[in-house]
Amino acid sequence: MLNTETMKIEDNPSKDKWKKLCERPQLELEYLDSSVRNILARVKKSGDEALVEFTKQFDQVELAELQVTKKEIAEAIKFIPSTLKSAIETATKNIEKFHQAQKRETLEVETMPGIMCWRKSVAIDKVGIYIPGGSAPLFSTVLMLGIPAKLAGCSEVILCTPPSKEGKVNAAILYAASITGITKIFKVGGAQAIAALAYGTKSIPAVYKIFGPGNQFVTKAKQLVNQEGTAIDMPAGPSEVLVIADEFADPSFLAADLLSQAEHGADSQVVLVTNSKKIIEQTSIELNTQIEKLPRKEIARQALNNSLSILFDSEVDMMGFVNEYAPEHLIINTKNCEQLAATVINAGSIFLGSYSPESVGDYAAGTNHTLPTNGFAKAYSGVSLDSFIKYITIQKLTQQGLNNIGSAVEEMAEAEQLKAHAEAIRIRMSNPKN
Amino acid sequence: MLNTETMKIEDNPSKDKWKKLCERPQLELEYLDSSVRNILARVKKSGDEALVEFTKQFDQVELAELQVTKKEIAEAIKFIPSTLKSAIETATKNIEKFHQAQKRETLEVETMPGIMCWRKSVAIDKVGIYIPGGSAPLFSTVLMLGIPAKLAGCSEVILCTPPSKEGKVNAAILYAASITGITKIFKVGGAQAIAALAYGTKSIPAVYKIFGPGNQFVTKAKQLVNQEGTAIDMPAGPSEVLVIADEFADPSFLAADLLSQAEHGADSQVVLVTNSKKIIEQTSIELNTQIEKLPRKEIARQALNNSLSILFDSEVDMMGFVNEYAPEHLIINTKNCEQLAATVINAGSIFLGSYSPESVGDYAAGTNHTLPTNGFAKAYSGVSLDSFIKYITIQKLTQQGLNNIGSAVEEMAEAEQLKAHAEAIRIRMSNPKN
Repeated sequence: MLNTETMKIEDNPSKDKWKKLCERPQLELEYLDSSVRNILARVKKSGDEALVEFTKQFDQVELAELQVTKKEIAEAIKFIPSTLKSAIETATKNIEKFHQAQKRETLEVETMPGIMCWRKSVAIDKVGIYIPGGSAPLFSTVLMLGIPAKLAGCSEVILCTPPSKEGKVNAAILYAASITGITKIFKVGGAQAIAALAYGTKSIPAVYKIFGPGNQFVTKAKQLVNQEGTAIDMPAGPSEVLVIADEFADPSFLAADLLSQAEHGADSQVVLVTNSKKIIEQTSIELNTQIEKLPRKEIARQALNNSLSILFDSEVDMMGFVNEYAPEHLIINTKNCEQLAATVINAGSIFLGSYSPESVGDYAAGTNHTLPTNGFAKAYSGVSLDSFIKYITIQKLTQQGLNNIGSAVEEMAEAEQLKAHAEAIRIRMSNPKN
Repeated sequence: MLNTETMKIEDNPSKDKWKKLCERPQLELEYLDSSVRNILARVKKSGDEALVEFTKQFDQVELAELQVTKKEIAEAIKFIPSTLKSAIETATKNIEKFHQAQKRETLEVETMPGIMCWRKSVAIDKVGIYIPGGSAPLFSTVLMLGIPAKLAGCSEVILCTPPSKEGKVNAAILYAASITGITKIFKVGGAQAIAALAYGTKSIPAVYKIFGPGNQFVTKAKQLVNQEGTAIDMPAGPSEVLVIADEFADPSFLAADLLSQAEHGADSQVVLVTNSKKIIEQTSIELNTQIEKLPRKEIARQALNNSLSILFDSEVDMMGFVNEYAPEHLIINTKNCEQLAATVINAGSIFLGSYSPESVGDYAAGTNHTLPTNGFAKAYSGVSLDSFIKYITIQKLTQQGLNNIGSAVEEMAEAEQLKAHAEAIRIRMSNPKN
């Protein structure tokens, strides 16, 4: 018998319902804003002292030293199994390969004779990476942020992550940090870590841009320091996957993919979109079987309660809905997957065919797993090498170049009633230096 | 005699003073936040009705129709002088050339045998451009935003700009819009325009990203809708220029460049950095002479009061200060300008040598004039083709590809305690579909 609690089913929903169906579950706590503002203000005022206090309060450990020592790193790494080390190395190589390919040469264009325009890329000098603690130590995110930071050439990369009750940082996080060349690692988590990275303290240098996932406190803190001028990677929301399947897809693969998203958190959202009623039924059966084997089945079950199966007879409507939803992860498990992918305009990352589960992209295929959630894929890209770079434009005109463009500039400046702009041209043309 | 009121002079300031010297003048109004929130809420609730009311209140004109008609555009364009038309066409060609060169092919990398990773660029489907009204009609900004939007292939480009008291939009703005292919132009300004672009009304479609400059109300509104999920081009602040000069620079050119920034607004900031006391003195004399000829001299004078001349004997200190200041516009008018430019890591756009005044970049050289102010150049780039594009990553694994990477993914997923992620691999490897 089908467990109807798992996923809600929609049968060819009309377009006026799409907006509502695309809404993500929201869990914002009422006191969030004021408590995060309070944390930020205290770290701004008292620096390391506040960090030690908050760590005692939230992580139940009193630290004498915030920075992880070289000795701690060396000792922790000893205990990493060699199979995990080699898996991390494989992932690292692929991530490096894909992100290295994103490098761009300096652009050089002579727009008119004597008018040279360049664009050079320069690394953001100082960046911060936040890695959450808790039950699932996200060392893969250390790779996803640390590797492009290193390739970009950021001169200072600071990592903050909350310590365990024993005052330690997970060994795999330290290993991933060390192989990406991150040496400044601090045992600070939550909104207080974001405050430290934004304002700087005696121990922790201030950075210009903060990356990384986190709970609602971290997300709110990133939003607030962003308003004050520190850049952030992107707006955040709970993780999500949308799977498109046709009758040729294997329901056991579909269920496994939906569950691998659902286990992330109770607020994760998973959506199955298909033209086959049978696929919905069979996937539901598979979900109920497979979920029982998962240690995080309670979390997954809650996530499934927020989730949807949608039947679309029309392929145009189906892709219209997908682009309206703008999923963070989009799995297209259909015979014509490449054809459908060509019509996708809003998605973070796309996984094509039967053998491309989301988990390969989460860990090791080479693409970045830091992606826009919550419909932000309509305007935002995932993290890439560019996220750690700024482009600076440069222009150099010869005297002849200025002669070629001067009258156009004067004309436009006068029309905008900015006479001094025109004068900066005239004074050079009437009184050349050489 | 020198007018000592013009620019403050600092002689080799020590490093501990730099942060203070880099602070930009701030004029935030106390009631700003609440009045902008009120405007946003009213537009969200009442749509076009609220827009008409606010336009009556702020622009002193009662509009029957918000959208500029084709007839209005055609009639306005008739009165544009042919010299201005041809200047705008020259600028357009150069801007197109430089932004077209920023296009990127789809990236394609086989990270391991059977693991194909792509990255394709897709235009942001719907974008909004805000152009302020007032005394200086910024049609050049229409080009700077409209041209890359068109090259990127954005399918909907909406322009909002406040009407005059006669209910009209400046003819040059309409002309610039029409040659960049923008057809949906609305007579709405201020925070209410930003609200309309973010939420949509009956007349004005909602967009995913909003571009363009504006006063404090517009800036605050962009910041607030950004928190709610609409992307924006970049955080904004008053315009600024930093000029580096050596003894070989012509003081009349330096003064003209400083004034062309100072005339923008009373809160503009201009900074002269040099190793020559004589250059400071002579530039000051030139400033006092040239300012008298300007129609906007009162504005320029106020801006100069916020401004600085700094003497640095050490070139290393000089460039250290420049990178700490992170100017929006950086003019390097020295003999060794290219050598100095190579050491710049934080700037929006750089102008090299004697014949590259900022005004060529403002209008027509081809580079974009929408640049990070207020030190944001430490983490942000100026507007480019990329600002109108998202990158979507795609991966497709063959069965063999999954076999090659599967165990690494399983290993990492288990170590992160995300068992369902590992199961999505296992179920495919133990039970291949074909």
